[in-house]
Amino acid sequence: MTDHGLIPSELQELSRRAAAAKDVSYSPYSNFRVGCALLCEDGSWVIGANIENASYPVTICAERTALVKAVTEGKKRFKAIGVSTDISPPASPCGMCRQFIREFADNSVPIFMYGRKEGECIVKTLGELLPMSFGPEDLHPDRGARK
Amino acid sequence: MTDHGLIPSELQELSRRAAAAKDVSYSPYSNFRVGCALLCEDGSWVIGANIENASYPVTICAERTALVKAVTEGKKRFKAIGVSTDISPPASPCGMCRQFIREFADNSVPIFMYGRKEGECIVKTLGELLPMSFGPEDLHPDRGARK
Amino acid sequence: MTDHGLIPSELQELSRRAAAAKDVSYSPYSNFRVGCALLCEDGSWVIGANIENASYPVTICAERTALVKAVTEGKKRFKAIGVSTDISPPASPCGMCRQFIREFADNSVPIFMYGRKEGECIVKTLGELLPMSFGPEDLHPDRGARK
Amino acid sequence: MTDHGLIPSELQELSRRAAAAKDVSYSPYSNFRVGCALLCEDGSWVIGANIENASYPVTICAERTALVKAVTEGKKRFKAIGVSTDISPPASPCGMCRQFIREFADNSVPIFMYGRKEGECIVKTLGELLPMSFGPEDLHPDRGARK
Ligand SMILES: [Zn+2]
Ligand SMILES: [Zn+2]
Ligand SMILES: [Zn+2]
Ligand SMILES: [Zn+2]
Repeated sequence: MTDHGLIPSELQELSRRAAAAKDVSYSPYSNFRVGCALLCEDGSWVIGANIENASYPVTICAERTALVKAVTEGKKRFKAIGVSTDISPPASPCGMCRQFIREFADNSVPIFMYGRKEGECIVKTLGELLPMSFGPEDLHPDRGARK
Repeated sequence: MTDHGLIPSELQELSRRAAAAKDVSYSPYSNFRVGCALLCEDGSWVIGANIENASYPVTICAERTALVKAVTEGKKRFKAIGVSTDISPPASPCGMCRQFIREFADNSVPIFMYGRKEGECIVKTLGELLPMSFGPEDLHPDRGARK
Repeated sequence: MTDHGLIPSELQELSRRAAAAKDVSYSPYSNFRVGCALLCEDGSWVIGANIENASYPVTICAERTALVKAVTEGKKRFKAIGVSTDISPPASPCGMCRQFIREFADNSVPIFMYGRKEGECIVKTLGELLPMSFGPEDLHPDRGARK
Repeated sequence: MTDHGLIPSELQELSRRAAAAKDVSYSPYSNFRVGCALLCEDGSWVIGANIENASYPVTICAERTALVKAVTEGKKRFKAIGVSTDISPPASPCGMCRQFIREFADNSVPIFMYGRKEGECIVKTLGELLPMSFGPEDLHPDRGARK
């Protein structure tokens, strides 16, 4: 099944919150709004949106915005990540965000991508989007097993 | 005066909240904890801490964490920014963070830097820390006056 | 076959140059040296190494160093990318680098990862390392077909 | 004097090379070309330009492109940095680049900023553009004196 263990109300909320988060995007340079919603392991929700900068490399994407909010609120484990954009088919997280997510998620965490059209959704796990990833175990091989 | 318009209770809170924010830092690679507190124009508070990544360039500093939280909560104007570290004299925001702050702050916004020692504090305005900055007006000279 | 169209002398050079590039790494913070070699479509070679910064997020990885060198020398098409580290099994490019490579490479471009041990090598294509990637076509759906 | 120790032919070359470097810019998203030229301590020259990415935060600015090229060629000390843009007055390096430069330059290194108009130039030292900077000594206070 493609629900990755989420119940119907959670699936609905993930989609709704990710889409709504686009409203707080600050993207005057790309005009490309992205919203993100996190369903934390404790059942709580955190949202984020992309915050751009006149110096493009200083921009922070929606996924990373949501994650730093969650982590600084003590939430480091997630049941699902939702990402919403205004295009079709839906956009996927950029490589930088996949790397950021990697630090706090197992390969099995599902990433739901929502597009412009009603009901449009693609789901992939982190492991599918960032196979053979670089992680903490690579930097310090002595500290833990590699994924 | 060096209080930049903050009243004593605000000065005290800024220091206390920036220091406390260090507790939510995720910095297993540098072991360098940074906490940040924002006093928003509406009188509310937002905090942040540095969130590192096994891929160092994917790290997000405390100041940027606090700012994306604030901006996605609809707060884009700030009375003061506090940054706390465990060294003495206090560390200043890195250039990337100064650039990020620049997008949402006037040159007059004060940045309070707190160090390891009790009561240790240095204050500089954004304009002092990032003189002759690159900003939105440079990218689109037709859209507004340059600072 | 796993040679991805490279002839034996090219395979040998890719490995040798990627490993040698580690010698120009500037990595006083992680002590994790990474070397990268690019075999450009015109048969020329470009190398890079990771250049770190006291502010970790300002660091530039070996792969991106090699690529900006190549691109500013007019080389935007590549036959192969080699990445060398001092660990075993070999490390893979971080997500941020996979994203950077994506801008200048087709999904079929092979990325050879070399590790600490003699002859140790893993090969994956960009498409395998960054499936369903975010790219130029997502930002401007009107400008071209999506990969 | 404002020449910062450069002789007339060096000043002329710095301006010419920074402007010419704009031609190798890859900036399809901002359409904001930036060129950079470095006069290395050994008298050699290195140029760079901004290389953008569909994921804006993955972009690398002209100054950082030039610096990683230089550093991986063994050049870590600089007599002058030139930055050229197509606007007037000239743009300055973003905060992220000031931070990157900081790792390899003393506060006294001059940064020449060239604009759209013939002969237009503003010069500031790194110390003027990034006062009270965060650097290696902050991360490891035991390793050296702070600037
Ligand atoms: Zn992203
Ligand atoms: Zn910073
Ligand atoms: Zn990387
Ligand atoms: Zn820059």
